Amino acid sequence: MFAERVSIEQVEEGHELAPKFDAQGLIPVVTTDYDSGELLMHGYMNREALQQTIELGEAVYFSRSRNALWHKGATSGMVQKVRELRIDDDQDAVWLRVQISGRAASCHVGYRSCFYRSVPVGPQDGSQPRQLVFEECEKVFDPQEVYGDAPNPTKL
Amino acid sequence: MFAERVSIEQVEEGHELAPKFDAQGLIPVVTTDYDSGELLMHGYMNREALQQTIELGEAVYFSRSRNALWHKGATSGMVQKVRELRIDDDQDAVWLRVQISGRAASCHVGYRSCFYRSVPVGPQDGSQPRQLVFEECEKVFDPQEVYGDAPNPTKL
Repeated sequence: MFAERVSIEQVEEGHELAPKFDAQGLIPVVTTDYDSGELLMHGYMNREALQQTIELGEAVYFSRSRNALWHKGATSGMVQKVRELRIDDDQDAVWLRVQISGRAASCHVGYRSCFYRSVPVGPQDGSQPRQLVFEECEKVFDPQEVYGDAPNPTKL
Repeated sequence: MFAERVSIEQVEEGHELAPKFDAQGLIPVVTTDYDSGELLMHGYMNREALQQTIELGEAVYFSRSRNALWHKGATSGMVQKVRELRIDDDQDAVWLRVQISGRAASCHVGYRSCFYRSVPVGPQDGSQPRQLVFEECEKVFDPQEVYGDAPNPTKL
């Protein structure tokens, strides 16, 4: 399914899918909501995850914390149906535009988007950590109810 | 400006900016157009680039191909004004919502978005590479005119 990367012209201007995986065998993935355009999550795929996503038409990531393929929604029911898949100029990043079944959330903490907090920009006293602002105020689902005692994927 | 990462609750549910940089000292960055919502590019920042972006209110990335800080638009004039900066649940990815001055393009190949090609999804004969479809048909600017003989950042 993937072509060899043979030239910059082929990669940037050509019609062959020739993705670049990093030293860990991964490619970063940006996932947005097809209808609202909102950024839902940032994840990773390995070669097999990208192949499965393309063939299945549903998002399959590679979980770095679990070191395993991760068919999004297999546990929560919130499957991401791929309406469009794009690749960037040098083919080292993937953009998924998805529609989500069920409660339409993507974040294991319970919010709609993983990006529920903003960071104020501009000059400020640099000795204090920036204070985050919650842009989503209510969780869409209860993680405990959906995931039970599954280990939290967040690593310090 | 950044807090130490001390607990999952602090990182996920707290108000302190405590970003996680990877083994190379980088954090991935997703950049979308503030007005259209379109995904423009996927890049990286190191600690200094993120600090400068927050203080300056303009996107400063870390260029992996040049191994240097990269104030986007310094060469091309297409500066990215940060209208909103968000961080994800486990604080290992950044979302920039930007407005671009000048010709409003973000891609060194000359397109508006770096993600100018799509990959058709669904079952297909797996022996052939997937054929990409151009979703942007015309370049917004001539890279030769803007960048001259600067080396192409794409790596095979």
